[in-house]
Parts: sequence; structure tokens; C-alpha cells
Amino acid sequence: MAKIDLSAIEPKTLIDGYLARLIHTENMTFSFVDASAGKTLPEHSHMHEQISIMLEGEFELTLNGEPIRFGPGSVIVIPSNAKHSGLAITDCKLLDVFYPVREDYRKLSEG
Amino acid sequence: MAKIDLSAIEPKTLIDGYLARLIHTENMTFSFVDASAGKTLPEHSHMHEQISIMLEGEFELTLNGEPIRFGPGSVIVIPSNAKHSGLAITDCKLLDVFYPVREDYRKLSEG
Repeated sequence: MAKIDLSAIEPKTLIDGYLARLIHTENMTFSFVDASAGKTLPEHSHMHEQISIMLEGEFELTLNGEPIRFGPGSVIVIPSNAKHSGLAITDCKLLDVFYPVREDYRKLSEG
Repeated sequence: MAKIDLSAIEPKTLIDGYLARLIHTENMTFSFVDASAGKTLPEHSHMHEQISIMLEGEFELTLNGEPIRFGPGSVIVIPSNAKHSGLAITDCKLLDVFYPVREDYRKLSEG
């Protein structure tokens, strides 16, 4: 199906306070995240290249130890294997795009 | 530079009525498009997988001959080599994500 309505996707909990609507294409995963104010994402890394796009609200992403505050109109490029963590400053909506497909998220979608 | 402000990117004209702020990562191209109401995108295809995400406004994308109207909250997945064309129903903002990098757009960014 070419057209996908986000409202038709069952949200999955990535971690406490981070709810995601996931779309997997042939090569990429799109994770539309609703994060709750004050919730943190522990430091992690993965082989996937990740681009984070703020849609609403404010978020602090720490990349290789450097905190970066960002809001709508900003994009963060997280290279493959770079360590990163996060903190939702406000309730926020962000879009994370991954290459290649996040197989762990695909399993979550199917679960 | 990990954080990119879209306002700092010089917009490039893709075609009359379609202005794009382009970001190229290692594997993907992100094209933040402002399209003007009534402007059309002629039918074309490319080997890149493309995902179109509506941010504001309404757009009609015709994919393999089938017209699909979409607005915010909807995503369209355009497989590699699929023929598609477009019509901006209203002024709109959309994000097109491509894998792999659009080398033609990269040249445009550098021009």
C-alpha cells in the first residue's frame, strides 16, 4: 500500500515515555515518536545511520558527549555507531529516519 | 556538523514552483520542499526509493497512474523506479527522503 496514514499505525513503546509509529520500507525505517517531557533515552549506539527531525517541542540530544538542544526547523545527523542519548525537554514529536532498516524495530512492529 | 538548521540552507529550485532545502547524509538525501499551489511535477522515475511525508497543505501524487491525495499525517512510499508525478493542491511543505543519495540533487546543492 503506497499511502500510509500514521493514525492507522498502532503505536509501540520503545522505552518508557517514548511511543513510536513505525514504518519500514525496503531500505529505511521511519519512527514517528511521541516523547513525554522529562523522559530520558539512555546512551546507546547502532550501526544504522540516523537522522532526527523535530516536528514539535524541544529535545536535548547528546551526541558523543556533546549536548545539542533542538526544536522544529532543525535536523540532527547521527553517524553510524555514534553514541547518543536523549532528554525530552517538553512533550515532543520527532521523526527518526534510519538506514538500513532497524530489524529490532521491525520485530517490535510485528509483536 | 551534527545539527543543521533548515533556515541556514539556501533553497534550490527543483522545478518551477518547487523550492527545496537539501541535506545529504552518508546514505540518504532529505529534501524539504515548499511547493506552490497549482504547480505540477511531471511524471518521472528514479532508482532511488522515495518516501514523501506531508508536513503542511495538500498534495496529489500520482503513482503508477493512480492519483493519491494526501495531507499531514500521511506518508507515501514510492518504490524504486516507480513512475510518479505530482500536483500541489495548496501551498504545501513536504519532506521527501531518498535512498541512496540523489547525486543530481547533491550537484544542485553544490551549484
